[in-house]
Amino acid sequence: MSQNETRPDRSEDLHEIHAQVLAYCRAVDRRDWDGIRAVYTADGVDHHTGFDGDADAYVAWLKRLLPRMDGTMHMLANHTCRLAADRMSAVSETYGQAVHWGTPGDSPQLNFTSGFRYVDHWLRTEDGWRIRERFAVREWHRDDSGRLHGPASAKAKARAEAGQPGEPDIFDVLLTRLEG
Amino acid sequence: MSQNETRPDRSEDLHEIHAQVLAYCRAVDRRDWDGIRAVYTADGVDHHTGFDGDADAYVAWLKRLLPRMDGTMHMLANHTCRLAADRMSAVSETYGQAVHWGTPGDSPQLNFTSGFRYVDHWLRTEDGWRIRERFAVREWHRDDSGRLHGPASAKAKARAEAGQPGEPDIFDVLLTRLEG
Amino acid sequence: MSQNETRPDRSEDLHEIHAQVLAYCRAVDRRDWDGIRAVYTADGVDHHTGFDGDADAYVAWLKRLLPRMDGTMHMLANHTCRLAADRMSAVSETYGQAVHWGTPGDSPQLNFTSGFRYVDHWLRTEDGWRIRERFAVREWHRDDSGRLHGPASAKAKARAEAGQPGEPDIFDVLLTRLEG
Repeated sequence: MSQNETRPDRSEDLHEIHAQVLAYCRAVDRRDWDGIRAVYTADGVDHHTGFDGDADAYVAWLKRLLPRMDGTMHMLANHTCRLAADRMSAVSETYGQAVHWGTPGDSPQLNFTSGFRYVDHWLRTEDGWRIRERFAVREWHRDDSGRLHGPASAKAKARAEAGQPGEPDIFDVLLTRLEG
Repeated sequence: MSQNETRPDRSEDLHEIHAQVLAYCRAVDRRDWDGIRAVYTADGVDHHTGFDGDADAYVAWLKRLLPRMDGTMHMLANHTCRLAADRMSAVSETYGQAVHWGTPGDSPQLNFTSGFRYVDHWLRTEDGWRIRERFAVREWHRDDSGRLHGPASAKAKARAEAGQPGEPDIFDVLLTRLEG
Repeated sequence: MSQNETRPDRSEDLHEIHAQVLAYCRAVDRRDWDGIRAVYTADGVDHHTGFDGDADAYVAWLKRLLPRMDGTMHMLANHTCRLAADRMSAVSETYGQAVHWGTPGDSPQLNFTSGFRYVDHWLRTEDGWRIRERFAVREWHRDDSGRLHGPASAKAKARAEAGQPGEPDIFDVLLTRLEG
């Protein structure tokens, strides 16, 4: 690859890396297992509270864990990214909080919010920027049991079941129209 | 309009669309009814939990609803936007949470936080990007009664009364100085 | 300084100002006193709930206040910035929420979340954009006592002690590798 002609500029790199962090959240919240896996390199590694291993094992772990809940929402905040001088790798830190809700509503194990920092080591690959190693550092944890409620809709419940997307998400519907 | 000469570039489009979502939040939190209306096209439509209709009716609905509370704060997070190939329309999804507080403080109807996704269909108009159709999808709801408190200042209370802006907001004051 | 040749463009100004707000949060959450001070001009001023004064006094105030807690996390959301016509000054508003946790966990003084707006007056200096005057407007306050928990790790506890960084933060470790 020619270094100067075919590569995007710095701001495009930064935009793509940020977009990948967003894509990860979207995939987790929709139980889109392939979408989660796609954010990592082939040899990607993840470190979470309660998990350390490669990206395939991480997705398998999430497949067991997430369907116990009715839903999750990963909301990102402060994002800082530094590119290496050769722009073939990067490091970013992203603050966020994840709301988790489940049934029964008074279960602290199923109804809580966690504050975290994703500290990610990125590699530029032929398919774009991918996470080579993620450290998900938990900062705080808040028990929301007895106070948190998910939507009562059939759609939301269906989405909670792995592999059962239920009615299509309105964002996907609008995207299809846009591109159709 | 000449397609190539007078239009901003893609990144400017994306910036303007994001700025409009922010402007919506600011207008709602300040009970700036005209500001809320201005984010939608003339024939704009909004779908909220508890409301479906055109933008005029939506603003009228908010005018009845919001003054019951002492304040709201709409905090945005993950924002993803896709432009149509001709860049005359776009679709975005924006995660956010809205904190609502009111008196008495132990009322669950007046003191809660909601997690939502704004899924917006955008059109480029002569006046800039506007929402043609918004789907405000509620993801979760947390009862914060007995724990949440707004500021005790007269300014905050005054802002809660529609059409009674109270003392000018410090951000507006600084903006005026900047441009003065 | 030549106005047109050596200055970054508008979008770079906006990016740098946003990065400074992020840097402030990072410094506060890590008790990096010099890092906090560096965000303000030499004659910078800060207005917080419970504090009004110059930046040196503000840092001294934080040095007394923050070590009482086990940790804080300042998460930013909506950010709006307007540059003056000559681009030598700017005004921004940044929404955010700060989670505070401490021991004992049932203390409302040590375990709470606050919603705020940073309203900042910026000046371009020889060292980059700096805050000349900050108004930290508190919007709401939520008592999280009895529900909020920080990490149990020695690292987190060590970080809580001023001047005792404990084990190096993983983000700093990765940044060092990137640049090494």
